[in-house]
Amino acid sequence: MTRIWNFSAGPATLPEAALREAQAELLDWHGAGASIMEMSHRGKCFSEVLETAKADLRALLAIPENYRVLFLQGGATLQFSAVPMNLLAGRCADYVVTGAWSKKAWQEAARIEKAVGKVRLAATTEAEGQPADGFCSFPRADEMRLDPKAAYLHVCTNETIHGVEVRDDALLPEGATVVADMSSHILSRPVDIWRYGLIYAGAQKNIGPSGMTLVIVREDLLGQADANVTPRLLDYQAQTENDSMLNTPCTFAIYMAGLVFKWLKKEGGLVRMAEINLEKAARVYETIEESGGFYRNPVEEACRSRMNIPFTLPTPELEAEFVRESESRGFMGLKGHKSVGGIRASLYNAMPREGVEALVEFMREFAARRSKRN
Amino acid sequence: MTRIWNFSAGPATLPEAALREAQAELLDWHGAGASIMEMSHRGKCFSEVLETAKADLRALLAIPENYRVLFLQGGATLQFSAVPMNLLAGRCADYVVTGAWSKKAWQEAARIEKAVGKVRLAATTEAEGQPADGFCSFPRADEMRLDPKAAYLHVCTNETIHGVEVRDDALLPEGATVVADMSSHILSRPVDIWRYGLIYAGAQKNIGPSGMTLVIVREDLLGQADANVTPRLLDYQAQTENDSMLNTPCTFAIYMAGLVFKWLKKEGGLVRMAEINLEKAARVYETIEESGGFYRNPVEEACRSRMNIPFTLPTPELEAEFVRESESRGFMGLKGHKSVGGIRASLYNAMPREGVEALVEFMREFAARRSKRN
Repeated sequence: MTRIWNFSAGPATLPEAALREAQAELLDWHGAGASIMEMSHRGKCFSEVLETAKADLRALLAIPENYRVLFLQGGATLQFSAVPMNLLAGRCADYVVTGAWSKKAWQEAARIEKAVGKVRLAATTEAEGQPADGFCSFPRADEMRLDPKAAYLHVCTNETIHGVEVRDDALLPEGATVVADMSSHILSRPVDIWRYGLIYAGAQKNIGPSGMTLVIVREDLLGQADANVTPRLLDYQAQTENDSMLNTPCTFAIYMAGLVFKWLKKEGGLVRMAEINLEKAARVYETIEESGGFYRNPVEEACRSRMNIPFTLPTPELEAEFVRESESRGFMGLKGHKSVGGIRASLYNAMPREGVEALVEFMREFAARRSKRN
Repeated sequence: MTRIWNFSAGPATLPEAALREAQAELLDWHGAGASIMEMSHRGKCFSEVLETAKADLRALLAIPENYRVLFLQGGATLQFSAVPMNLLAGRCADYVVTGAWSKKAWQEAARIEKAVGKVRLAATTEAEGQPADGFCSFPRADEMRLDPKAAYLHVCTNETIHGVEVRDDALLPEGATVVADMSSHILSRPVDIWRYGLIYAGAQKNIGPSGMTLVIVREDLLGQADANVTPRLLDYQAQTENDSMLNTPCTFAIYMAGLVFKWLKKEGGLVRMAEINLEKAARVYETIEESGGFYRNPVEEACRSRMNIPFTLPTPELEAEFVRESESRGFMGLKGHKSVGGIRASLYNAMPREGVEALVEFMREFAARRSKRN
């Protein structure tokens, strides 16, 4: 068996140690005589898995006591609807659009706003005709037209497609109840949880298999869902009262997430992870800068994502050749998102430094060879 | 490794062959160098998994061409909301309540009815103070007060907690657009799909791991969702247009379902499965009948579920003893649902006949020993 270097944006590479543990006990969890995926979510074995996963996550992210942790279903996309249904309560909310994902969140909230409240566009970096449609930065707090009465301010702190990241939580406006989609960089660094009202994340990048959604919500925001329109499964209050088990949760995905949390603790936690992620990303950005314009990334330096690095080559033909050649050399998932084209390297926690070195070497070698010929 | 006899109602026992296949390729799917759960849902490998799973399911259930198959998230509970949001369109719907699950579906629809239409209770077997709260039968078509203008008629064709099953699709009213929650008996027998407008099922009984939801919907019912209130992820039309990939689907759960479908085909399909399930259930019901009242199941004979068999013993103390002893003998999951107490044996497809024989033997031996003493 040869494991390849998998740079997919998600579902993404997982720690090999977590996969090996899952494999070893797939038919018989801890001698119980059944797979964890065959066990009742209300039984002793799964309860232990759930409680350990929650405790480990709380420890890793240093989640304050007045925040609740939920393991839900439906991905970040279902949260695009759940957030306004739970938090608007007839008021207005501010949305900041900085890439494809925050734009989708804003559009979804705007679509159902008649039923639940009002949605404002507080800032957008979108500019048609510009590189990456203008999605190359994150606005400063004083560039946002915020409504002081807004129920919340929605941001996406790492745009998976455009590679724009909020690298410092202190850059977000103070005083606002910030709701953040952290799908593609959660657990990549420590987070000032107290700066946020609610954090959500699809699991399939730094947490585990797709299908699970993490929600971290401050207790005072619970209990506001409009019962006339909110599906009960999306009601945060109902889910906290039932400890994420209003219905059968995605038990296997939660179990895998637990194995990933355990691996993160063993690796030294999020401070260590942040150091490694900074190093890994720096290697790729250096290679882009040193290529003399062969590789280009349009994002402002301070907002460059350490998780998702999109870049272009001089022509679409060269990009196609880069992808083809990368695949024949055992790399996976380097093709950019279909909406923007180009190349994208996703360097999640589980991508070892060796994989990044192999990529950087390939990038250098390819640029040297092809920039001469062109 | 000893695999035990797992009678859990769900998440439930899975075919050992499917688990072994998943285990063997957990780190390296078909030589691709990555786990299937690490792969992009839009890549070649997962597309193959998805298409094969859909084709196998269509073949197993003989799904007509004018029905679409969706692999969604959120369990049957999220469908309790999605069904009225998609199908009511300001009209009314009839609900038949025959147990805990159809009651929940009715209550959830009624909760959001102001936003989407009107919900009627067309029939209920509930009667407080009766054994199993009266949930011991399925009403005849002429016992339902149906509205001929109803957008749909909702039923639960197998009540997992109360053990009440619609064993013949022809018993349902003709002319109505029947929407059925088949969570706990889907794939246990052939189904006249054409008699239904929409079928949904949580995966964690006869399909695969929890977190996936199957929806089979007749094409003419698509496109009616109220865009002002329906989360886009719950819109069947949007999901069919995107082939269940409006967002990242629960890829590993779909993959496991595909392995279960492959196993079902190899075992001879649903006609064979129905024969085996009939035999397995008959062994347990015989044992109940032959116990001279030591074991009791209150459900009318024609409606007795072949999948979930609840029964009681003379006293709660004896029931607790039965559960304790069963666990020490290597059985799992025989404790009844907390809302009704007693014992419940779930005999899904993946429960081998040997497991049922072992259970029946234990039941006989326990009754012989304990009915003498009492």
